[in-house]
This record gives sequence, C-alpha cells and structure tokens, in this order.
Amino acid sequence: MKKSFHIFFVLIAALGMSLIFSTSATAADPLPSWSDNPTKATIIEFVQAVTREGGKDYVLPAERIATFDNDGTLWVEYPMYTQVLFAFERVKKLAPQHPEWKIKQPFKALLEGDMKTVGASGTKGLMEIILATHTGMTATEFSEEVDKWLTTTQHPKFKRPYVECIYKPQIELLEYLRANEFKTFIVSGGGIAFMRSITEQAYGIPPEQVVGSSIVTEFQVKDGKPELVRMPKINFVNDKAGKPVGIYQHIGRRPILAFGNSDSDIEMIKYTMGGKGRRLGLFVHHTDANREFAYDRKSHVGKLDKALDQADANGWIIVDMKKDWKEVFPTRH
Amino acid sequence: MKKSFHIFFVLIAALGMSLIFSTSATAADPLPSWSDNPTKATIIEFVQAVTREGGKDYVLPAERIATFDNDGTLWVEYPMYTQVLFAFERVKKLAPQHPEWKIKQPFKALLEGDMKTVGASGTKGLMEIILATHTGMTATEFSEEVDKWLTTTQHPKFKRPYVECIYKPQIELLEYLRANEFKTFIVSGGGIAFMRSITEQAYGIPPEQVVGSSIVTEFQVKDGKPELVRMPKINFVNDKAGKPVGIYQHIGRRPILAFGNSDSDIEMIKYTMGGKGRRLGLFVHHTDANREFAYDRKSHVGKLDKALDQADANGWIIVDMKKDWKEVFPTRH
Repeated sequence: MKKSFHIFFVLIAALGMSLIFSTSATAADPLPSWSDNPTKATIIEFVQAVTREGGKDYVLPAERIATFDNDGTLWVEYPMYTQVLFAFERVKKLAPQHPEWKIKQPFKALLEGDMKTVGASGTKGLMEIILATHTGMTATEFSEEVDKWLTTTQHPKFKRPYVECIYKPQIELLEYLRANEFKTFIVSGGGIAFMRSITEQAYGIPPEQVVGSSIVTEFQVKDGKPELVRMPKINFVNDKAGKPVGIYQHIGRRPILAFGNSDSDIEMIKYTMGGKGRRLGLFVHHTDANREFAYDRKSHVGKLDKALDQADANGWIIVDMKKDWKEVFPTRH
Repeated sequence: MKKSFHIFFVLIAALGMSLIFSTSATAADPLPSWSDNPTKATIIEFVQAVTREGGKDYVLPAERIATFDNDGTLWVEYPMYTQVLFAFERVKKLAPQHPEWKIKQPFKALLEGDMKTVGASGTKGLMEIILATHTGMTATEFSEEVDKWLTTTQHPKFKRPYVECIYKPQIELLEYLRANEFKTFIVSGGGIAFMRSITEQAYGIPPEQVVGSSIVTEFQVKDGKPELVRMPKINFVNDKAGKPVGIYQHIGRRPILAFGNSDSDIEMIKYTMGGKGRRLGLFVHHTDANREFAYDRKSHVGKLDKALDQADANGWIIVDMKKDWKEVFPTRH
C-alpha cells in the first residue's frame, strides 16, 4: 500500500514537473521562428512592459493597437507586388473583350510582353491597368476572382501559391500580440478588397481589421438584388502620408506598435512613435538572397533607404531577415 | 448516516434546481427593457437560429455582423441632431475669432438667433457650419472638444447630458448580440470622429467599429510632432446609399442584422436583407411623445415615411417605441 502510494506520488510529481516545464517553454519562447537576438528580446520586453498591470508602461487592452504593412512585411513583394501581377494576368484574360487594347498603351505593351514600355508608363499607366482590371464588377465577383487567383497561382521562386508566400515569424508575432490582447490590423498601400480575400485565412485578421487603398464603390439595386459595384475611379491611396490618415479614418486610435518594411511606412511609424507612453516601430530589412530576396536602397519595389538612415536616431528597430529569422515560410501542408 | 445522506442529496438537488432556474431566467429574458411583444420574440428567435450549431440557419461567429444607425436609433435626435447643436454652439464660441461671420450667412443668422434663415440655407449652409466648426484643428483637439461638450451639455427635455440620452433597450440588445458573438458596429450619417468620442463609454463599441461621415484629414509633422489635421473639406457622406458603401469599405462583410430609424437607413437595410441565409432588418418608430418624442412621416429630422410603407412587403420589423420598450433611458448614476 505504501509503495503504490509512493509510486503514485512520483507519477503526480513528474506530471506536475512536465506541466511546469511545458508552460515555461511556451512562456519563454512565444516566437520560435525568431533567432535569439536582441530584436526578439526587444519585442518580448515591449509586450511584457505594456501588459504588466500596475507597471509604469501598462496600456489598457483597448488601446493595444498594432498595425502591419502587408507587401514585404507579412508576405513576399519581390520581384513584383502580388496585386500588380494579378492585374497583369487579368489584362491577358480580359483582352478578348477589349480589342481596343491592341493599340492602347500600356495595355498593348503588356499584351506583347514589352515590360520596359509598361514600366515606362509609370504610376499613371499602372493605375490605368489597375482600374481596368479591378472595376466594373460587383464586390462579390471581384472577391471571388482574387481568391481563386491567390490560392492557385504560384510564385516563380517558391513554387507555392501566393497565399502561402507569407512570413512564419510574422504569423507568430501576430498570434503572440493577440494572445496579449492586442488588436492586429493590416495597414497597406495594397487594395483593401484584394487583401481581404485572404487575410483571415493567412493571418487570422478579419476583413474589418484591414485598412488599404480603395476604389469608388456604388450601391445599386439590379433586378431587385442590392449589390455594390466597383467603379473605375480611385477613392483613397493608403500609402506614405496616407497611412496615418487611413489609421485615423478606419481605426480611430493611434497604434502603439507598427511594423513596415519600406520608406512608404515611415509616416505610419512616425505617427505610431509620436504618441505618449511606450511605442515600438519596426522595419523588415530584406537581407536574405538565399531563402527569400535581398534588396533595399535601390529596389524598384519596397525601397528601404531613408528609414535605414533614420532608424538609429529615432529608435526604430531594423529586423534583419537573414539574422533575425530562423525560418522564413511556414511548412506547406 | 442514511438520513444525513438524504438531506445532503436534497440540498444538492435544490442547488441544482436553483442553478437551472437562474440560468433559464437569464436565457429567457436577455432584453428586460423590451416588452414581451412579438418584436422581442422575433429578435430572440433570430439570434437563437443563427447561433444554433448544426441548425439550418447557423452563421459562423466571424460572419455575425450587426450594424446600428446612431441618431434616433441608439440615442436621441429630436428636436435636432446632437452634432448640429454642437456645431451651432461652437459657432457662438468661435465668433470672436471670426469677425467676418457678422456679415456672412448662415453664420450671421445663427449668431442673431434667426433659425428660420439658418434652416433656409439648407444642406449647403449646414455643411458650411460643420466645416467651420469641425476642422482646422488636430484630431486630438477635436476629440477633446466633443467629449467635453457631450458630457456636460444637457438635453432640454431630459435634463441629462447628451451622452446619457441613449436608449436602454438598445444597450441591452447590443450586449445580447455581443454575448452571442456578434460584432456590433455603428453605421451612421453622423461624423465618425464626433461619435467616436463617446461610443465606447456609451455603447461598448470601440472606435474601430464606428463607420460614419468624415472630413479630409492630413498628416503633418509640426515642431517635430506628428499630428493629423482636420481640413475644411468633406471626405465621405455615410448616409442613404452611402451606408452600404461605408460598410463595404470599412467592414468588408455584409451584415446579417441592421437597425435604423429613418428612410436614410433603407439602403443599409436592403443591403443587409439582400444576402443569403437568415437576415433581420429593423427600424425604431418614435411613437412616444410622453417618454421621448413622436415623429415620423413629416419630421424635419429622422423622417420615417417610405420605410413604413415598404416594411411589411419586405419583412422589415417596425419597433414601436411606446409599445415595445418598457423603459427608454438608463437610470442616471
């Protein structure tokens, strides 16, 4: 009797210890894909400081707003923004219905594969392509098109659908923040409706927590069916100085943490850091030519130049993809 | 031993029964300020249907979006919209800094108390007053002004600050919906920044779940401080056909429940009812001249006319304030 009691006690104790260990392991490493570098320590210290009740840096859960850029911050943007590739492929798909494109630039060049001329058409040309491919249908139709494309089209380098070209360490960070009662938002120059097709599945971020560029939309009742129809006109460009404006209009609170990867995120980071109390501003630096891509000051996408120069003086964290991330992409299912 | 065991069993059973009863009581009356009329039964049946897992009307929590108009639906709008009164009082307050208003309409009339001329200036005049009183300051400054005004200025009839002129049955409904994993939003023609000053305190709705009209805002860095400055230009009017558009841009999902009180809410209700599966659309009908106000088809605010005519044919619920609400306002603390 005594012996069996003893064994029982040992078993309980062992169970208790293993529970303690597994709990400690979780608490000690909420970001397993992040290398054990100062960057990771800074993030964890920040989260602990703002969530410690009674501490001098405590922030109420309702005020724990975290905003993330999308292209190059949460998913791949190189060698070209995913939404632009989607637009290019749609031009090819829609070409039979648009005979005028055979003689109209930049559509003509795009259909002929003359990317130099497409590039030379600049922002104006790109906007024409975006409007021609993103409007003239209902909100539901557009969302279905995007969803189908993102889940089936593969990235040339990573041989996986674009919806899976997302950064594992960032998914862990989003989950870690939400576990600490942060509300996580995307604040991107990308199209709001384009992103919303996949943000819930990819990042656990619901459509109402996505802030982005938008096109004018009209409410119409067609054959008795109420629908929203996408019109060929830009409504709002949520980029650069537009990001703090988008945050104000959509969220209505100043974030306490913001994460970007390019000079287009400087205003969002400045706005975030400009509030009272503890703040954290971060940039992904794409330094990993092997596992992803290496680009910064002279890149045609996601240019990171001024932010690199100004980071130290402003206390912005530069996340070095090669050194700070143990893994880049999630394992494919 | 046997007897004490029996007593113990009876005690446990009694405790169990009381637990069952208290649970039933809560489940049976989540809306105590609503009269036990068909309206209340319809709301409860709807919520039970869409939350019953495995049921044919089940809706996933993420899709349980409920949108509420504000003026006349969640708080008093009679005899004049609260935001308009705020603007009028600000004209008087700011007049010393604007000598030109002494000769400029509609400011001149307003300062002289000539409300007939102010009214005759129509939407254009009102917009001038709104822009003159709602812009030219930072987002933070504006929010503080509004907050101070709403918590200290009293409604002439109810002798309580405007922030407390909110409808108790609607607060219960918002809480009931949230307890059933709905996400509750305000979708109003009112100014988004004006409403956000009080929506969390008054309704438990955080700023990021408020959709409203807005003015153009600019990001500026003044003396090294990043700020958002409100510019004298309308950005978006979130009213009538603008409501479904605001819902699309801000929420990105079609609501399954929408609640309004005037013809300005018809498009939002139509859009909501136009989706697949179970839907609920409701209008508050102000029928209570004694406890609140009675107005509808010919009112200068919150006109409810076409919606009354179209309700039956479309399955919209008309909530009769006098008959359907046991109480109108919360008890003052």
